[in-house]
Amino acid sequence: MKCFDTHIHSEGRSVEDLTAMANEGIKAAITCAFYPIKPMFQETLIDLFRKLIDFEKYRGKKTGMEIHTAIGIHPRCIPPTYTKVLEMMEGMDSTAFGEIGLEDATQEEIEVFESQLKLAIRVDKPCIIHTPRNNKKEVTKKTFGILEKIGFPETLAVIDHVSLETVETVLKANYIAGLTVQPGKLREEEVVTIVEEHGFENFILNSDTGFSPSDMFAVVKTVNVLIEKFDKKDVKRVAWENGMRFFRI
Amino acid sequence: MKCFDTHIHSEGRSVEDLTAMANEGIKAAITCAFYPIKPMFQETLIDLFRKLIDFEKYRGKKTGMEIHTAIGIHPRCIPPTYTKVLEMMEGMDSTAFGEIGLEDATQEEIEVFESQLKLAIRVDKPCIIHTPRNNKKEVTKKTFGILEKIGFPETLAVIDHVSLETVETVLKANYIAGLTVQPGKLREEEVVTIVEEHGFENFILNSDTGFSPSDMFAVVKTVNVLIEKFDKKDVKRVAWENGMRFFRI
Repeated sequence: MKCFDTHIHSEGRSVEDLTAMANEGIKAAITCAFYPIKPMFQETLIDLFRKLIDFEKYRGKKTGMEIHTAIGIHPRCIPPTYTKVLEMMEGMDSTAFGEIGLEDATQEEIEVFESQLKLAIRVDKPCIIHTPRNNKKEVTKKTFGILEKIGFPETLAVIDHVSLETVETVLKANYIAGLTVQPGKLREEEVVTIVEEHGFENFILNSDTGFSPSDMFAVVKTVNVLIEKFDKKDVKRVAWENGMRFFRI
Repeated sequence: MKCFDTHIHSEGRSVEDLTAMANEGIKAAITCAFYPIKPMFQETLIDLFRKLIDFEKYRGKKTGMEIHTAIGIHPRCIPPTYTKVLEMMEGMDSTAFGEIGLEDATQEEIEVFESQLKLAIRVDKPCIIHTPRNNKKEVTKKTFGILEKIGFPETLAVIDHVSLETVETVLKANYIAGLTVQPGKLREEEVVTIVEEHGFENFILNSDTGFSPSDMFAVVKTVNVLIEKFDKKDVKRVAWENGMRFFRI
């Protein structure tokens, strides 16, 4: 079954890795913006977005994986100023904004997040919203507070890296939930537990594979586990269709 | 035998790739600056250098490979202005400038190359000097012209990616020659031919592995071929010692 890995950092993967992923069935992916150090200059992010849109798509094409691009300011790499970044994000040819969101929920992070959400409303752009490993429940709640405060459309938000603890609140608030299968995040069996309880409608799968050691086949492996237990039509929804619809591809 | 890959682009390799390289014996490498699209802003290169110095070294450490950093403006990624880049290069904690040099030998490339060479003289920094795949002989000659014109010290220059056609002129001019083993560049047997004829003193080995599909084990494989045919002491010089001495590590 062909798979859509809705959140990777393709820059951290060699072209041979991307080829191996495509050969295993990952025929589409969204590569999310991230800079592995705190940039000194906002210009660095603008060129990063250009790199994702031009070079990463091109690398994907060579491997048989359609790479779509999410651009945005990750909370861990906020430059000293970012007005030009926001200006550029408005016009650039991206599939989504992401990953954006809160890490430590500082005032600076909240401002950057809000600015990007407001821009997303204006240009009608789907957003990949990160939730952190630490204090996930609390920060997810703060994230909802911001989304609600500015009246962010539920149809534009995927809340990513949900846990067993946060999944229910995400669904109750009518957002799409991103199931990230990776050591330290969800295990395959936890995905089984989640869809057993909540169905297949509001989930998308991803691996978050990138700069760190990671299982780049996590989505395929999860799909294979799901196929053993559930109807193929249902599995196809989380493996491919829900993501394609949400990101309007 | 432990190997020193004197020219890679570690950013194009996943952390698992770097681990595999280290496990095969590549215990040290120099990662060279390159941006896979033409940057719109010079600031992008400054943050790139910071990334190479901080993040790539850190990634290397995790894998058992000591990654040293070469910073500089590659002829294929010259930003619209670069005065700030040169200023920053002067003070940054790099092992070398590289890769720098000529690709098409345009006037702009020549100016950027010369500026960096002059800076290298001033701060006494070894330089990794690229020669292109096309018109290698002719562009190598132009490169020599520039080096001679500004009186560049031979002890600071490795002329990289030499071919069977250019190796002799490089040695005659008293530069170190970089033997890049990779499809489209040198084959292992060609390295054998070269050291048979010219000895081991003035060569360093590298793979140039990075963003494109490439044999990341090329240096180890070459060293294994050399060990079959030559004295281990000699092989050790091209595999490790010459590079360590040239780059003053």
